[in-house]
Amino acid sequence: MNSQSTRRPDRRAPWRVKLGNVIYNNDTPAGRAFDLLLTVLILSSVLLVLLESVSGFRAKYGPLLRTLEATFALLFTLEYLLRIVTARHASHYARSFFGVVDLLSILPGYIALLVPGVQAFQVVRALRLLRIFRILKLARYLNEASVITEALRASAAKITVFLATVLTLVLIIGATMYVVEGPKNGYTSIPTSVYWAIVTITTVGYGDIAPKTGLGKLIASATMILGYGILAVPTGIVTVGLTQAHARRAAAQRTCPNCGQVQRDEEAVFCSRCGTPLPPPSP
Amino acid sequence: MNSQSTRRPDRRAPWRVKLGNVIYNNDTPAGRAFDLLLTVLILSSVLLVLLESVSGFRAKYGPLLRTLEATFALLFTLEYLLRIVTARHASHYARSFFGVVDLLSILPGYIALLVPGVQAFQVVRALRLLRIFRILKLARYLNEASVITEALRASAAKITVFLATVLTLVLIIGATMYVVEGPKNGYTSIPTSVYWAIVTITTVGYGDIAPKTGLGKLIASATMILGYGILAVPTGIVTVGLTQAHARRAAAQRTCPNCGQVQRDEEAVFCSRCGTPLPPPSP
Amino acid sequence: MNSQSTRRPDRRAPWRVKLGNVIYNNDTPAGRAFDLLLTVLILSSVLLVLLESVSGFRAKYGPLLRTLEATFALLFTLEYLLRIVTARHASHYARSFFGVVDLLSILPGYIALLVPGVQAFQVVRALRLLRIFRILKLARYLNEASVITEALRASAAKITVFLATVLTLVLIIGATMYVVEGPKNGYTSIPTSVYWAIVTITTVGYGDIAPKTGLGKLIASATMILGYGILAVPTGIVTVGLTQAHARRAAAQRTCPNCGQVQRDEEAVFCSRCGTPLPPPSP
Amino acid sequence: MNSQSTRRPDRRAPWRVKLGNVIYNNDTPAGRAFDLLLTVLILSSVLLVLLESVSGFRAKYGPLLRTLEATFALLFTLEYLLRIVTARHASHYARSFFGVVDLLSILPGYIALLVPGVQAFQVVRALRLLRIFRILKLARYLNEASVITEALRASAAKITVFLATVLTLVLIIGATMYVVEGPKNGYTSIPTSVYWAIVTITTVGYGDIAPKTGLGKLIASATMILGYGILAVPTGIVTVGLTQAHARRAAAQRTCPNCGQVQRDEEAVFCSRCGTPLPPPSP
Repeated sequence: MNSQSTRRPDRRAPWRVKLGNVIYNNDTPAGRAFDLLLTVLILSSVLLVLLESVSGFRAKYGPLLRTLEATFALLFTLEYLLRIVTARHASHYARSFFGVVDLLSILPGYIALLVPGVQAFQVVRALRLLRIFRILKLARYLNEASVITEALRASAAKITVFLATVLTLVLIIGATMYVVEGPKNGYTSIPTSVYWAIVTITTVGYGDIAPKTGLGKLIASATMILGYGILAVPTGIVTVGLTQAHARRAAAQRTCPNCGQVQRDEEAVFCSRCGTPLPPPSP
Repeated sequence: MNSQSTRRPDRRAPWRVKLGNVIYNNDTPAGRAFDLLLTVLILSSVLLVLLESVSGFRAKYGPLLRTLEATFALLFTLEYLLRIVTARHASHYARSFFGVVDLLSILPGYIALLVPGVQAFQVVRALRLLRIFRILKLARYLNEASVITEALRASAAKITVFLATVLTLVLIIGATMYVVEGPKNGYTSIPTSVYWAIVTITTVGYGDIAPKTGLGKLIASATMILGYGILAVPTGIVTVGLTQAHARRAAAQRTCPNCGQVQRDEEAVFCSRCGTPLPPPSP
Repeated sequence: MNSQSTRRPDRRAPWRVKLGNVIYNNDTPAGRAFDLLLTVLILSSVLLVLLESVSGFRAKYGPLLRTLEATFALLFTLEYLLRIVTARHASHYARSFFGVVDLLSILPGYIALLVPGVQAFQVVRALRLLRIFRILKLARYLNEASVITEALRASAAKITVFLATVLTLVLIIGATMYVVEGPKNGYTSIPTSVYWAIVTITTVGYGDIAPKTGLGKLIASATMILGYGILAVPTGIVTVGLTQAHARRAAAQRTCPNCGQVQRDEEAVFCSRCGTPLPPPSP
Repeated sequence: MNSQSTRRPDRRAPWRVKLGNVIYNNDTPAGRAFDLLLTVLILSSVLLVLLESVSGFRAKYGPLLRTLEATFALLFTLEYLLRIVTARHASHYARSFFGVVDLLSILPGYIALLVPGVQAFQVVRALRLLRIFRILKLARYLNEASVITEALRASAAKITVFLATVLTLVLIIGATMYVVEGPKNGYTSIPTSVYWAIVTITTVGYGDIAPKTGLGKLIASATMILGYGILAVPTGIVTVGLTQAHARRAAAQRTCPNCGQVQRDEEAVFCSRCGTPLPPPSP
């Protein structure tokens, strides 16, 4: 996440260092103000993409919307250029996750201006929203996100086994329902039946396709109760994963041997409360 | 919750103290009777709001309903005045959460009487129901509610990360479906598509909008299975939060060093079973 | 569950004792055969209630169904009489939970025969199914059921707080949607809107009522995401309850101080493996 | 899973042993390549079953699809014969779970070629997908799958009690709704009403049948909130089961008495880090 390496000596001009601190950090009032402004801009630009797709709105405020779109495109371009200029290592930033997202979120704006009919770019413009994760860069969110990610990664093999089982189930149930209910009841093909099975087993239940025959309703009922029970499995997996991730965190935390104070700084050498030398962190 | 401070000397007249005990406490028969009566009144007044909105009912019993509404308005006004008069510090009460709810629940009654056509006030009248939480003031409910609240508060950062991820997902899925399915299949705009994505990912599945094309059904299926798996994350977060909240409670509980009896009274000085002096409670 | 007290001397004739053992116990081949036969009869009689309600079936096999119904009524009457006769204390049985269920499941059969038009009795006849729990009397099911019941009972206060919060939420959301969407969009009254809010917050989502206006869809989206998150709370509560119930069980289990063997018999005085005297069970 | 016993001396010709290693194991490059090829073939053949059921597709590419089907039938037959020939004990393989699945997945291909109208065989052909589990034979998936299976097996009695309770509930709710709503509102029979109750309690909510009367909506609302709460029970059961299964695994793992290193190899005699002799594994 931190796109600025701290190893090599910094050769940027002072104004670039100063501006870089405002743009990349949020531990100064100016940095926080910049982050807040950016959040407002990102959310407004996403809202604009949403509103532009509403036909009544587009018909009425078409020119205004296009002007706003151009303004956002310019502002985000300016921001991108500033980030390139003030980054410690411009190429590091440009190739980082957020660097690519930042670029992706300004390109479609220009293309949409040149070719107004190309609807598909609206999707890419929606990618702007990914930038909102910049805001979650705050330490405590990052830490929590990493606990969730760690729990999910530790459970990946279990979740793969679970998904393979669910996909096999919906294929077999779908194929069965295609034979039992048939095209005349809306089960027009096995893919459609499998779609119905997924709608049912995940308890979404649109009702666009629903069993009509008695046997179909019986199989559907069994599928629902199965889906109901199956839902318990990923929840159990994630809960156990989260519990273990928390336990590992707790075990990794060091406490002062003198006063028992928990050390928040993972690299602390002395206790933050009583100054007693701390044992080295466990690997 | 306890809107009466116990620090400053009490200067209320004896009848105000006595009445205040009936109204604010529920550890005497009179206090419990008052609470029970209030519960019945609150539930009846909410039921009245519900019934009044049923057109057939309103046409038939209009005058009766309006009389009952006026009666409730008067009774709740009387209660509010009594609370103000008997509170140890009237201003404390008036500005407390329940003080504001109590006031909010009598104002719309008067306005509705004066301007019978203003439907919007029915919503505010429904706020009366918030008063029902008064009844849950009982110690054991408060304790349980605080465990849940503590678990949720401890998980707030995790839940924020989770919600931000879900909102980003539904925006991207919604924008994609708008392009894939398009207005002719009911996905009339990106906001509508995002609404559909939320309906799908939360497994609600109204079916008022449903994919018609093959590719749309494929994306919808992936969204459902995603939503299914994602549902596991908040559950895991809350479960871990509750487990930790319980563990903290258990650790805070003191046991007798002589007989091992768990001390229910947090401020006990002697063991409730064998009378052994207890160590002071940990801060 | 065990409707036969073992304290007072048994004054039943030998044949009544023998027959009672077959009917009430399932630790002999005859007892197990009786239980199996009873299960088949109960399931068949419930299936009969189901089939009788299908109009096509009733029209075709009416007389046959009525004959079968009469047969079941007779068999269950016979069983009830046998239970009364062979019970150690007939009055104990008659007033026990299963005694009342057994009586309730034969009465409607007779009434339905006398007054064939009275449909409401079909519901009562479905109560027969409660008798199926007799089969789950097996020790291991009882034990598991009691863990679940214990966990739910320990969580009762938390679940009450949770339900009160959900009910308040659906009332306020329902009243809001009644004002926002109004009768012309299907939200014909506040009770109907509250019904919609429950359908939405529980993620059932029939789609018989769905928001049409933009604001309505926005509120509905917030309700769904709320419902999604809220679902995590009871799951967390029950999981923590179950974990604690299991921990209590494990703590209550006694192990042999000599060989470490876990003692399955709660009242054992000597170790079941090495014969070492066991310490008395903890209260 | 391992269909080759290692007890009796191997009497297969060297080429059969070599080929068998490629087919049955995946610890050599050739074995992994074979597994990858097989995965692609299985997935393609399942895709073919799906596409063949789409009428537009079948009309257009009928002859091509039939040629592909014949090719797959031949390839899978060849694979089956190779497995028989190279297995250490052909009869062991033929009677194993995967042996039967392999046979089942080639038979319908031939029958479908001979009798093209028999649609029901498409279901059996979907069973091919079960073969995909071969791929999950990898050690870490097997281990995870066995944790899930162990947790579910340990919870089987609890889940049976839970399912019996849910089935009794939906029967009683279904019978009640049949009387309350009646055939004119879509509740045409008790089985249909029970189907509705299952759709509702599992929060699927198709909306093909929905309550119309006020009392019906009230009962439906109670059912939904009940289903919502009930969903917490299996999740809690599975989570506790998974936690205990993990705890048992952890307890079974041996650590070095000298350096504390956890031993990954279950049959290790010396510590993998410091070489200290290890105590024998617990049974």
